[in-house]
Amino acid sequence: MLSKIFLKMSLTRRWFLACGSMLVAGAIAAAAQNDPAAVVSPADRLIAAATNTDFAYRRLAKLCDTFGPRQAGSSNLEAALDWIVKEMKKDGLDNVHGEEVLVPHWVRGAESAEMLEPRRVALPMLGLGNSIGTPAAGITAEVLVVTNFAELQKRASEAAGKIVLINQPFETYGRTVRIRRDGAIEAAKAGAVASLIRSVTPVSLRSPHTGAMLYSNGVPKIPHAAITVEDAEMMQRMQERGEKIVVRLQMSAATLPDAPSRNIVAEVTGRERPDEIIIVSGHIDSWDVGQGAEDDGGGMISAWEAARLMKQLGMQPRRTVRVVLWTDEENGGSGAKGYEKRHKEELAKHILAMESDSGACQPRNFTFAGSDKALAHLKEWTGALAQLGMSSVSKGGGDADVNELIQDGVPVMSLHCDSTNYFWYHHSAADTMDKLNPRQLGLCSAAFAVMAWQVADAPVDLPR
Amino acid sequence: MLSKIFLKMSLTRRWFLACGSMLVAGAIAAAAQNDPAAVVSPADRLIAAATNTDFAYRRLAKLCDTFGPRQAGSSNLEAALDWIVKEMKKDGLDNVHGEEVLVPHWVRGAESAEMLEPRRVALPMLGLGNSIGTPAAGITAEVLVVTNFAELQKRASEAAGKIVLINQPFETYGRTVRIRRDGAIEAAKAGAVASLIRSVTPVSLRSPHTGAMLYSNGVPKIPHAAITVEDAEMMQRMQERGEKIVVRLQMSAATLPDAPSRNIVAEVTGRERPDEIIIVSGHIDSWDVGQGAEDDGGGMISAWEAARLMKQLGMQPRRTVRVVLWTDEENGGSGAKGYEKRHKEELAKHILAMESDSGACQPRNFTFAGSDKALAHLKEWTGALAQLGMSSVSKGGGDADVNELIQDGVPVMSLHCDSTNYFWYHHSAADTMDKLNPRQLGLCSAAFAVMAWQVADAPVDLPR
Repeated sequence: MLSKIFLKMSLTRRWFLACGSMLVAGAIAAAAQNDPAAVVSPADRLIAAATNTDFAYRRLAKLCDTFGPRQAGSSNLEAALDWIVKEMKKDGLDNVHGEEVLVPHWVRGAESAEMLEPRRVALPMLGLGNSIGTPAAGITAEVLVVTNFAELQKRASEAAGKIVLINQPFETYGRTVRIRRDGAIEAAKAGAVASLIRSVTPVSLRSPHTGAMLYSNGVPKIPHAAITVEDAEMMQRMQERGEKIVVRLQMSAATLPDAPSRNIVAEVTGRERPDEIIIVSGHIDSWDVGQGAEDDGGGMISAWEAARLMKQLGMQPRRTVRVVLWTDEENGGSGAKGYEKRHKEELAKHILAMESDSGACQPRNFTFAGSDKALAHLKEWTGALAQLGMSSVSKGGGDADVNELIQDGVPVMSLHCDSTNYFWYHHSAADTMDKLNPRQLGLCSAAFAVMAWQVADAPVDLPR
Repeated sequence: MLSKIFLKMSLTRRWFLACGSMLVAGAIAAAAQNDPAAVVSPADRLIAAATNTDFAYRRLAKLCDTFGPRQAGSSNLEAALDWIVKEMKKDGLDNVHGEEVLVPHWVRGAESAEMLEPRRVALPMLGLGNSIGTPAAGITAEVLVVTNFAELQKRASEAAGKIVLINQPFETYGRTVRIRRDGAIEAAKAGAVASLIRSVTPVSLRSPHTGAMLYSNGVPKIPHAAITVEDAEMMQRMQERGEKIVVRLQMSAATLPDAPSRNIVAEVTGRERPDEIIIVSGHIDSWDVGQGAEDDGGGMISAWEAARLMKQLGMQPRRTVRVVLWTDEENGGSGAKGYEKRHKEELAKHILAMESDSGACQPRNFTFAGSDKALAHLKEWTGALAQLGMSSVSKGGGDADVNELIQDGVPVMSLHCDSTNYFWYHHSAADTMDKLNPRQLGLCSAAFAVMAWQVADAPVDLPR
């Protein structure tokens, strides 16, 4: 089966797999023996299996191409969840089911932005998640360009009645995303009638990026949208030349009542202590553009693949490995909140909760939020990760969903990948399957499989 | 004046200029003396002046932002030409005028592509220049994906009645652009009702790229458009999975009667042999998307700036330096053909014709199509180019417009820049002013100024 699939693959894909295979040549060579289990460690078996197939890549491609983006509240997402449940059952995973939660249901609707003065130009744009719409005729107003919140505060007296454009260049995501999250609040405080931001990305090919935004009690709600780096820079230049800029913004965005969705749960039940849980996870929802392939299709499928490989290899760890595919990470984390609430009584027996939510390129390392004693164990158990080109586990935070479990004392962990190009695609129409490749997805799956196995099968519990 | 401008610039721009200044620190330090002409060579004076200002950058930004893209036949282009003539006169350039030619007038009109099966997805697209339109209801047909012309020929029996998508990955522009130029011909030969190509670019953020295409006598004309790398790859995957793909293509493109346009000509008249001409040039037209900033705003403004600097510095060479801003390079080269016809009798006295049409990033080298004897002179005269980080002149071809003069024996030359990212933006909405920077534009202007001066002021004619 594998060789047939391999020959049907494009040359590029075969090359990627060949590289993956070379990287873990030792493990594969050993696994190729007649009785691999006798001579090869469980970690090496999982690595060999994960890096010698493009199964996860093809499965994710099928999901992305068939269902498209998977926004919380959308029928796309629910159809994708139905399909996933079926596929997980085909994999022979245990206890496959959905756990219902209510998720926010923001819909973009028709939207456009056009510069009317000094020259008519259609401005590619994306309304930001949770923004209100404009009146049907749109909002037409003069534009004030500022480069950050400090400048906005200084020039607040000029902002009244205007559309404020925050043209802040990308530094890091963490630093720059504030303009997306809080831009409408800060602009409204200054009296603006709408706010635009320069898309939060280091590289643009006239490509707008969406994402969640907030309003604040007591501050008027104004429409909030992202335009491209190119157009933000153009308006900056126009303002510096003293030219009057007028833009018309039309958005029919609306927030509908919360909608039912589900976290998807599936397990490899532990052979000795089935009530002790190691979570491997990613989020299944995305924004409503592109395919949500990097964010977070890659993380989600790597978690799923780790469990699938254990089943395929007939490997059953002491404790239970639980795959959780979170719904609604993007717009408030109601999936993770729902899980925390539903499983509150069992969280004392959640040994570790892992997530991947920074793409699925070359895996770099795991970061761990837990005790030093636990960290020492983890380092000791996971030497095999070096085969994947990864450095050891280090202290650090988890991703958004698993972080929800910290309040219950659950140690959490994130799988980090090379994120050089991650924000080029993030929350945009360009977050599509071609940005991933089978080799790197195999390495990510291997990383999750090794870490999950080593903790789930350890002779001692990971201490809190 | 300069320092005031400098302080008004953004920090980034100041940094770029500072770098440019450091690079040519020797020349600038010398030029800063009280009597620079006495101690500094003409080449060093031109380099110092070109790299110590962002005048060309700001002028090009004004042009791009004010007039937008400048397609042959468009009112944008003609308005830009009027403005350029005025500005050139302000510069004090000699003999500023337009030379009329008729140019093709293709208009895109409304257009769209949508995948209907296996999933409805709007496909970002750009019709290709000179394509016919579709019937008003569009063309709805099953898609056959091939990866190159060889595969199309092999599978020709499957193509009848279908939309053929040529999903050829980018290698070099020269190799890959054939699918854009000849794709409709090859697809029509196989019986296709329309043809789509994967955009000719190495990097995509769901961004389509346009450009010229051809029909062939005796082969039916079918509509021809570019979709994105992402969507071409998606359809390739769908076909490999055995899924039926149906697309609806709607294009209202049309070719109108040829329209009047102009090459713009301006000079620094030679002090001894004014009838001997050294051309510095770039093309002013662009495609109808983006701003034509890299292609070829940067080349065009560098040529213009070289002459402006000579005037500003009061430098008059022995022979005439003639700036030519070609119209309609993009859709057939009618500007260059018109020049060749109009000036046929004078071409024996065209000493050299230079063009820049590969963006205006870090200049790398000049290539020269002429005699070995001339090449030896050029190398001897242009040692100053090393200050700009450039290698010496080497044998090679010219750019499209000046190549038109080779038939008349005119030696031609191209200024080549680092083109690492050039095809990311080329012929797309992302070819905008932010892709250039003042420092590199200064280096390009300096390169042209030095080369033009050294040939125009040489004690001996450049031999043919």
